[in-house]
Amino acid sequence: MLGKLTGFDDTIVAVATAPGLGAIAVIRLSGSQAFDITNSLFPSKDLLLQASHTLHFGGIIADGRIIDEVVVSLYKGPRSYTGEDVIEISCHGSPYIQQQIIDAVTKAGARLAKPGEFTQRAFLNGKLDLTQAESVADLIASNSAASHQTAMQQMRGGFSKELHLLREQLITFSALIELELDFSQEDVEFADRTRLYELVTAANTTIRHLIDSFRMGNVIKNGVNTAIVGKPNAGKSTLLNTLLNENRAIVSDIAGTTRDTIEEVLNIEGILFRLIDTAGIRESNDTIESIGVQKTMEKIKEAGVVVYLFDVNENSAEDLQQQIDSFQADNINFLLVGNKTDIAGESAIQEKFSKIQGILFISAKNHAHVDDLKQALVQKVLSGDINTEDTIITNARHHSALQEVLKSLHDVSNGMDNGVPGDLLALDIRRALHFLGEITGEVTNEDRLDYIFSKFCIGK
Amino acid sequence: MLGKLTGFDDTIVAVATAPGLGAIAVIRLSGSQAFDITNSLFPSKDLLLQASHTLHFGGIIADGRIIDEVVVSLYKGPRSYTGEDVIEISCHGSPYIQQQIIDAVTKAGARLAKPGEFTQRAFLNGKLDLTQAESVADLIASNSAASHQTAMQQMRGGFSKELHLLREQLITFSALIELELDFSQEDVEFADRTRLYELVTAANTTIRHLIDSFRMGNVIKNGVNTAIVGKPNAGKSTLLNTLLNENRAIVSDIAGTTRDTIEEVLNIEGILFRLIDTAGIRESNDTIESIGVQKTMEKIKEAGVVVYLFDVNENSAEDLQQQIDSFQADNINFLLVGNKTDIAGESAIQEKFSKIQGILFISAKNHAHVDDLKQALVQKVLSGDINTEDTIITNARHHSALQEVLKSLHDVSNGMDNGVPGDLLALDIRRALHFLGEITGEVTNEDRLDYIFSKFCIGK
Repeated sequence: MLGKLTGFDDTIVAVATAPGLGAIAVIRLSGSQAFDITNSLFPSKDLLLQASHTLHFGGIIADGRIIDEVVVSLYKGPRSYTGEDVIEISCHGSPYIQQQIIDAVTKAGARLAKPGEFTQRAFLNGKLDLTQAESVADLIASNSAASHQTAMQQMRGGFSKELHLLREQLITFSALIELELDFSQEDVEFADRTRLYELVTAANTTIRHLIDSFRMGNVIKNGVNTAIVGKPNAGKSTLLNTLLNENRAIVSDIAGTTRDTIEEVLNIEGILFRLIDTAGIRESNDTIESIGVQKTMEKIKEAGVVVYLFDVNENSAEDLQQQIDSFQADNINFLLVGNKTDIAGESAIQEKFSKIQGILFISAKNHAHVDDLKQALVQKVLSGDINTEDTIITNARHHSALQEVLKSLHDVSNGMDNGVPGDLLALDIRRALHFLGEITGEVTNEDRLDYIFSKFCIGK
Repeated sequence: MLGKLTGFDDTIVAVATAPGLGAIAVIRLSGSQAFDITNSLFPSKDLLLQASHTLHFGGIIADGRIIDEVVVSLYKGPRSYTGEDVIEISCHGSPYIQQQIIDAVTKAGARLAKPGEFTQRAFLNGKLDLTQAESVADLIASNSAASHQTAMQQMRGGFSKELHLLREQLITFSALIELELDFSQEDVEFADRTRLYELVTAANTTIRHLIDSFRMGNVIKNGVNTAIVGKPNAGKSTLLNTLLNENRAIVSDIAGTTRDTIEEVLNIEGILFRLIDTAGIRESNDTIESIGVQKTMEKIKEAGVVVYLFDVNENSAEDLQQQIDSFQADNINFLLVGNKTDIAGESAIQEKFSKIQGILFISAKNHAHVDDLKQALVQKVLSGDINTEDTIITNARHHSALQEVLKSLHDVSNGMDNGVPGDLLALDIRRALHFLGEITGEVTNEDRLDYIFSKFCIGK
């Protein structure tokens, strides 16, 4: 039945490496005909007689002409990525050659793979559950230590494991309820209600924790919009340069990233801080109070965190308090940073601002306490409770399914409070189990699957 | 001694696939430590105990963290591309992951490879001669059927084989001469001079043929600059569209090629015709005669072939003859194309231009005889004598070395004519052999090698 979903009789093919010119490129085939098709183009050896997980050098010949000298990797199903027979052809990295080989392979009976179709087959063949399959796309897109770590943890089944535990708790609960139903006329109580409450509460806590991790997951996956604002001459440019020079984003090392992007992304402890353009604020306004202009204010509200930089020598504590009040009124997540501590003495400054909590004093010019600022930024975003070993939700689909699970469990709790009959409680539990199943792919439908995998790149 | 050239004790590493995001990427190591280094990052299995040409799935672990789940390919030297121990790590195609693995591998003792260094090692280890090694770069850069075929033929040793034959001829010649020298006082003649002449003549012919193929090789490798010129309303745009629509260059199918480039390259039978911009001529001049302006004329002279398009209804035979004279005076390689045959009858037109040879009559609008035009273009460029099975020189370095060989052989012929003593003839022969050796890499020096391989991409 699963076979029907993707047409498993087909053998699919795609270039699996990045497009363009490279030393080598890899073309991947998966399906029952993968070996036969490749064999028909590879006269050097009979691939059907070779062991799985072996490499074979030879020519790809089509229409009597040699296209390339390649190395063929053999993976016999189920010991392969998709669980099917898989062939990887490692050829010279000319786009022309890649195209010629793809043409030859499709003429020999394969069809071009759709985006994500290899991973979709891996899922349908039970090699990965849906959360693991989805994390493959995240892993490929990962561009910082934290997003990489989170995707890797999910791909290796961390999230699936938590869901599995949750599922077991709910099934236990459901079993107890249904057992009571069977014997309802005999008025037997197999588990006291306290035990049931405990189970639901425990499941609730786990799910809430996972749902809460989504905000952090989003930060990890997409970075945090960050605005550095302050009056002219507060030292914003100096601070920016200090931060950027010491903290080139990892992406800067990678070809294809534009210089513009590099200069606006800070990578601090694996979290990407995306600096939003507040040039307008910086240049055209004399004081921070005049930010009030609707448009610039919106930009600041967009920020996940606002670094408010002020000159400790010029600003009064009263001015600062006013600014704080204004941020708080607008519900802005801000960090107070007093700059230029090198001019006055630190103790005098501490004294001056003693009534205001949580100021970070730095000297951007002298690089003093800039590391503390970085720490504070990370803390501000992660609220101090991140641990990348934890399971973190990064996928909006998972997030909304978990919310449905939570809603169902809420109905269960409410039901118990109101003495709702066991068979109705059982329905709510089953609803919760259904949504859990949607996350891991135990419950799914064809359209949904196609949508999920269409977001992948081709060849994966 | 060869080892000293590249520091063979090093183990080198580079990403071998195209830069950017893909489903997978391949990282390649070569050198005596390749297995040990990979093994230290791959706890799943002891790679040192595995057979060559096998594939192994497992995690790459560095600093206690898993970087990725990968497949490792093992090639034990000398059965590898470089002839050394080679490892290929096939990882997920995130640039971040690629960078992390490269970092881990370099920390474990490898160093980053220079461009072409893998192929350079293949050469130094005798896996390829220099012409074959150089054709690897051509093969990767090939973007048409003909350039691909030529590079492939060279990589598989076609050119090397011809050079080898040539070398044998010269060595035979040299042996005969030197034998005479040994017995010179006895006035023995081991071979009559006629036989020696034959040998030199045969070698001369082969080399001339190879040198002549360079023009064609250049066309195949780089395409032909082509200008379509003619008076306003001759139908240039219509012809251009007809040609372009039917003949999208192969490069158009490949990501990363800009649309601008696509629109200016015609691929006809695997030869790339690069349309040079004659917009200036087309727009700012009323008649083709006024092309005389220095700058636009230079553009036309730059062209490998000029398609002169004229309206058969508007142009007189006299005008055309004048244009032909002007092209001939400037030594321009042109093709006469009479357009708009659909308006008058074909026979009337043939009559009108009966005195002028070699006109191609078409109707760009009706696509009539446009295929003939394509054929004519190919013939014009290849002079009708191309056969891609022939050995074709595409490399300027080979071309100039062959010219030196030819010059030396010329000195030999001259020497024989003038009764130059055998020991001097032998010197000229040795000079010819020296330049042949430079082509295949039997004679070379470190700087030259570094320069040759520096034109490669990294990872090859």
